[in-house]
Amino acid sequence: MISSSNAAGRINGSEEHGSFPSGMKAALALAGWLVLCFGAASLGGIFMPGEWYATLKKPSWNPPGWIFGPVWTALYTMMAVAAWLVWKRGGFAAQRKPLALFLTQLALNAIWTPLFFGLHWPAIAFAEIVMLWLAIAATLAAFRPVNRAAAWLLAPYLVWVSFATALNFALWRLNT
Amino acid sequence: MISSSNAAGRINGSEEHGSFPSGMKAALALAGWLVLCFGAASLGGIFMPGEWYATLKKPSWNPPGWIFGPVWTALYTMMAVAAWLVWKRGGFAAQRKPLALFLTQLALNAIWTPLFFGLHWPAIAFAEIVMLWLAIAATLAAFRPVNRAAAWLLAPYLVWVSFATALNFALWRLNT
Repeated sequence: MISSSNAAGRINGSEEHGSFPSGMKAALALAGWLVLCFGAASLGGIFMPGEWYATLKKPSWNPPGWIFGPVWTALYTMMAVAAWLVWKRGGFAAQRKPLALFLTQLALNAIWTPLFFGLHWPAIAFAEIVMLWLAIAATLAAFRPVNRAAAWLLAPYLVWVSFATALNFALWRLNT
Repeated sequence: MISSSNAAGRINGSEEHGSFPSGMKAALALAGWLVLCFGAASLGGIFMPGEWYATLKKPSWNPPGWIFGPVWTALYTMMAVAAWLVWKRGGFAAQRKPLALFLTQLALNAIWTPLFFGLHWPAIAFAEIVMLWLAIAATLAAFRPVNRAAAWLLAPYLVWVSFATALNFALWRLNT
């Protein structure tokens, strides 16, 4: 088993360069994961709910709009920390599969907003969010044996996307 | 019809602030599209062809490895310029659909590398690249009425992804 402090300095299997203390390297890596996750999030921010969304019929359990900002901020932060915890165990070389699953779910997350709020395609967005749900579940399962805390950090995200999937389904069916 | 010079300063339908000259705004926007496209590209760079890829049976028409770097650099640059040309015609507010299609294809592009080189899933990567091809074709068709040059800038990308789709198919079938 690789100790996380030794492994923190390695990306893509390259050796420790020794130019940074390992604590600083780990902090830089955490910053990198945060930039990546909030970068994906900001792509979604381009297409805000507008007139079209206002005219949609909503289910009775549709949450108030102000809730989405704080919830997603918390979820993207936990997501970044989870990926960083897994990355610390040997970098991309050692954690190729779990981190590839993570990046796949992150890109699927980024696609949903252009499909729903950009293209106004609730049916295709629904098919896409089901794939996102599966990718998150697979990522959580792949993180679990590497770092238990990382898997737990993804649990609220999976719960929220389950709810978002139901909401997308309702918005699609109520407006066809 | 909206003139591109008036429209260049607007993002998300917000009004001109007048704090930058419009030439500088347009240059900053081009830089933004380049950062976005090369950001998506660099996600792919995390998972390089390694031992696993070296052991795969290749078709006779498999191109030499050195060709991919320069080709993708040119394609991502043309892609960014194409999106920027469309964005200049009224920003996200006016070009919601074409730009949402563009961002969808960009995220699908970013997913392929983790699926193929990260997870070693050639069959799922093939299904995914077919969706990417469709998204690029839809983006090209949506760009055409907005800016003819933008559509042409995506043509080499569509041709290359057609070839990449055939290559992915061959690599999948030769190794099952």
